[in-house]
Amino acid sequence: MKKGKLLPNYSAVELKIERHKEKEFYKKHGLPTPNFFIAENGNDALNILKKEFNNIGVIKKSRGGYDGKGQYFIKNDLKEFEFIKEINETFVVEEFIQFDYEASIVATSDGHRIKCYEPTYNYNEKGILVYNYGPLENQKVKFKMREIAEKLARILNYVGTFAIEFFVKDDNVLINEFAPRVHNTGHFTLDAAYVSQFEQHIRAITNLELAEAKILKPSGMVNILGINKIPEEVLKYGKLYWYGKEEVRKRRKMGHVNVVGDSIDEVKMKIEKIMKIIYKDELYELL
Amino acid sequence: MKKGKLLPNYSAVELKIERHKEKEFYKKHGLPTPNFFIAENGNDALNILKKEFNNIGVIKKSRGGYDGKGQYFIKNDLKEFEFIKEINETFVVEEFIQFDYEASIVATSDGHRIKCYEPTYNYNEKGILVYNYGPLENQKVKFKMREIAEKLARILNYVGTFAIEFFVKDDNVLINEFAPRVHNTGHFTLDAAYVSQFEQHIRAITNLELAEAKILKPSGMVNILGINKIPEEVLKYGKLYWYGKEEVRKRRKMGHVNVVGDSIDEVKMKIEKIMKIIYKDELYELL
Repeated sequence: MKKGKLLPNYSAVELKIERHKEKEFYKKHGLPTPNFFIAENGNDALNILKKEFNNIGVIKKSRGGYDGKGQYFIKNDLKEFEFIKEINETFVVEEFIQFDYEASIVATSDGHRIKCYEPTYNYNEKGILVYNYGPLENQKVKFKMREIAEKLARILNYVGTFAIEFFVKDDNVLINEFAPRVHNTGHFTLDAAYVSQFEQHIRAITNLELAEAKILKPSGMVNILGINKIPEEVLKYGKLYWYGKEEVRKRRKMGHVNVVGDSIDEVKMKIEKIMKIIYKDELYELL
Repeated sequence: MKKGKLLPNYSAVELKIERHKEKEFYKKHGLPTPNFFIAENGNDALNILKKEFNNIGVIKKSRGGYDGKGQYFIKNDLKEFEFIKEINETFVVEEFIQFDYEASIVATSDGHRIKCYEPTYNYNEKGILVYNYGPLENQKVKFKMREIAEKLARILNYVGTFAIEFFVKDDNVLINEFAPRVHNTGHFTLDAAYVSQFEQHIRAITNLELAEAKILKPSGMVNILGINKIPEEVLKYGKLYWYGKEEVRKRRKMGHVNVVGDSIDEVKMKIEKIMKIIYKDELYELL
């Protein structure tokens, strides 16, 4: 890949255009990721799902999917997904991972050194992040995530902030995907880290000194999805970031609430309070 | 005082127009402050200094002084200050306080409750803040500062963020002055508090819920005075806030560097490093 002026460089961003290339990249470099096959079209995808994964797995469009769009989780309920047959696009067909939890690491590389924030637990629903908190406590898992982040940054000669999302089972991690940019699961760094993922990114791409990616306290974040009005009461528990988007749409990220606490338990308690204030019992209708 | 729409209300801001009224306010309400006399002009001021304080004290213009402007510290070197005689303005003549250190508290009141940040140690030179750090460790002193902040806010029916600067000797505190606004010694809250003094102020004056004024870690700040270029190396130790002022002038506050650490000692070490990087040995020439 030719080196240009773009930071992060094109080869890192390019990986995100087609999901099957991202998956092949992990395979090629021995980076752990759920087993997968590439299908040339929807019909092939369904056939592969049957043959290789016994009709339990995930079929993902190679292009254009994010926040769970273009991803189909299939568990024997093939009838519902007949429509995939008609789609003439490249798909990735992935094994279904029965993970304990999802997690992510946010890191910044200046091309030489890498600074990793503490990984977080992420709670996604229908492929979209609802809340996350950290730091993650399993040291083995954290070590593996940092090793993978370092390796990925090195291979890609990455400059800037990026995130990697994982599935975690026991002490094992599998890469779900990586994001060559600041990340929703790193928003807590605005309030709980010495320097935020945004400032670290700017420092990296302008060739300034990176700061230590230190977390000051346990912390987390609740996404505001598909709602453009929330009760003032959330301010008791967190700090509101409102994106000022004019139009509210289903699942749209309208803002988030950052939370800091003296312990993980305090953070979890605050997240629970905020979830109740924001969504009452309507989260599933909104997603 | 009539109640208007201004927050903080006019009676609080008015106190800052004339220093002698601010001092009389403290006296009237039993708030501890250095002994003082009011002089109608410069000639009287010098006479009072001689008669009451044996030619050791501080003569301050009642109007227009800030960052040490219009303040004269006199220790028997009267010759140098002859020029004061010619000034036909009201002055405050204050006893000279041999304090152990200066300190301040930043707090926010919503008119009912008050949230106080941890007080900090302040290092001033020629009446201008050079750096500060906290939290202050003397519990008795902290308690007294909080009590005074609460009393002041109550008397003034104050809404918004404010600061009080103190002289501290042993366990005793004297009010130097108060500031009805966000304060230079509260800038650390941008990086080391759950919610900054600025957001607290906005919450207060817009009648939103105040956040806990919690400090996440020991922290501090170094002012960038009279310089418009500093070495990138400071970013190793702190986070830079640059005010973008076009013109650099002697003593002008051009920006500041915020510092966070796991201990007060780490914060002090970082401040020392930053002081050396920014000022080399030129601080006194710049002030």
